[in-house]
Amino acid sequence: MSKSYRLASLSLAIVFAFSWNFGASASAGDPLPSWNDVESKQAIISFVEKVTKPGPNYVPPAERIATFDNDGTILSESPSYVQLAFVIKRVKELAPQHPQWKDKQPFKGVLEGDMKAVADSGEHGVVELVMATHSGMTADEFTSLVENWLANAKHPKTGRPYTEMVYQPMLELLAYLRANDFRTYIVSAGGLEFMRPWTEKIYGIPPEQVIGSSIKTIYEIRDGRPMLVRLSEINFLNDKAGKPVAINQYIGKRPIFAAGNSDGDREMLEWTTAGEGPRFGLIVHHTDAQREAAYDRESSIGRLDKALDQAESSGWTVVDMKNDWKVIYPKREKASR
Amino acid sequence: MSKSYRLASLSLAIVFAFSWNFGASASAGDPLPSWNDVESKQAIISFVEKVTKPGPNYVPPAERIATFDNDGTILSESPSYVQLAFVIKRVKELAPQHPQWKDKQPFKGVLEGDMKAVADSGEHGVVELVMATHSGMTADEFTSLVENWLANAKHPKTGRPYTEMVYQPMLELLAYLRANDFRTYIVSAGGLEFMRPWTEKIYGIPPEQVIGSSIKTIYEIRDGRPMLVRLSEINFLNDKAGKPVAINQYIGKRPIFAAGNSDGDREMLEWTTAGEGPRFGLIVHHTDAQREAAYDRESSIGRLDKALDQAESSGWTVVDMKNDWKVIYPKREKASR
Repeated sequence: MSKSYRLASLSLAIVFAFSWNFGASASAGDPLPSWNDVESKQAIISFVEKVTKPGPNYVPPAERIATFDNDGTILSESPSYVQLAFVIKRVKELAPQHPQWKDKQPFKGVLEGDMKAVADSGEHGVVELVMATHSGMTADEFTSLVENWLANAKHPKTGRPYTEMVYQPMLELLAYLRANDFRTYIVSAGGLEFMRPWTEKIYGIPPEQVIGSSIKTIYEIRDGRPMLVRLSEINFLNDKAGKPVAINQYIGKRPIFAAGNSDGDREMLEWTTAGEGPRFGLIVHHTDAQREAAYDRESSIGRLDKALDQAESSGWTVVDMKNDWKVIYPKREKASR
Repeated sequence: MSKSYRLASLSLAIVFAFSWNFGASASAGDPLPSWNDVESKQAIISFVEKVTKPGPNYVPPAERIATFDNDGTILSESPSYVQLAFVIKRVKELAPQHPQWKDKQPFKGVLEGDMKAVADSGEHGVVELVMATHSGMTADEFTSLVENWLANAKHPKTGRPYTEMVYQPMLELLAYLRANDFRTYIVSAGGLEFMRPWTEKIYGIPPEQVIGSSIKTIYEIRDGRPMLVRLSEINFLNDKAGKPVAINQYIGKRPIFAAGNSDGDREMLEWTTAGEGPRFGLIVHHTDAQREAAYDRESSIGRLDKALDQAESSGWTVVDMKNDWKVIYPKREKASR
């Protein structure tokens, strides 16, 4: 054995020893450093260890499906949904082409900043706003609109980009589950194609693992080029009882882990935790008026009422944001990438 | 350096050298052994090498999406669709509960074995048959029906299980693409939940990578247990211009490789190959009357007419089954697992 060969082997051995230690210390360390050492954190870790270790509760990686609601569960929905800010911006941009909007709710409310009038227009009004602002262009054009808007838009209270208004403890949870061979999905009432342009960069969740509400899209040839054109008609509303239906439609497997924060997630958690074997249901409870916002049963955005009642009987873990989380948002330098 | 340490390093080096050689010889070997050394095979291999090697045509793994039609592309559709055999069996089983079917087409045709009458009932008739046989039960119950039927059903001509009536050269192509970090999807007009119970075992394609036609499903609580119940209403017909729409809906990325065999796949191939950068469109042309079946422009099942015309102008590779494939089906012992 030549000296250089021996040195090369040694280097190889050192490299492997180093990788090994690095891997070991990462998993031996705290996988959820932004969580206080509370019951919810212990329950999560205990569940993950249970399903990944050989034994009666072992779940093979292919079945380790985890579904997460988006608004209020990973992304702040306070004071309002991020997508609504996009809608408002678009209505203002498009208003010159639609002079009748000045006198027609809910457009009038948006243009005058009268959010009560918008809220009073109900679900029908919101659908009208979405249709008017999300359709009539190709899928690619819509993606560009979202990307351009997001690059410049700022949260009204913090002045930070919306993509930084994400919960650091939930980012850690997503990463922890993936490190344990879970496949993580977004299952949101938000627009499918509103979310896809940024979920991979911000959450590490690729487009094919995003499930959302959608509008009808058709395939067309324009000037000899094929296009996907967005129509002003709802295709699927991915909320409440629609969530388990969409999960079945997209994934074809029942999740073993689901996380939400409102009554819109109740059926997803119910469907998930009613399955056989080990299951985990998690509810993010907004209890932190100082660092974020405190709301539940009476809120028009992210109302958490029936699901909070059901949490106890169904054994869901309720995360108390104020007590359970050390921080809410990522540090600035960490988030901006 | 101790002797034992040196030996350990040496063993390690040998193990790695061995793995390396093994990897190299696997890729240096023939990845498509059931294909003759013809243009289509060379085109596939050249494409895969082009997109996986560093250079101007390199495509990162996350973008290596390959979509495959099912009937006639991977699974034999001759003399008729496998799913139709399931429908016929179900109509006969359910007939005693529906005495009116004796006098009502297309049910009458099915019960009397008059397939011309069934064909004459058109698309509307086929939809009626599917609705009557695929709905009114939970998603889990339907999966069991499919699994039980498939376990015993035999192809009318060969007497082999339907799951063995798959094209060995296409199984090799699927495996070859996956070995090169492609993600392979089924995109079929066939029923989503008719395919999912067996695609993983037969094709290595998991449920979440199967896209198909579907019927409306609702979430319900029955006797305190949540269920997904299948209604007798079409949700989405995943054929022709529906295929690019569904690909966008499910994957959110444009494939770089698509394979089909009929006009039902034309838009999927068109959408795929109209994208920028290297693209591959493949058409399986049924030219082998002796080993399988010869049909194209005039066939009612798997009609290949417009797509065959478009193949040349769009640069799609047409596979001539008779000349390009050494074998059609897997050897018996290989297929039964």
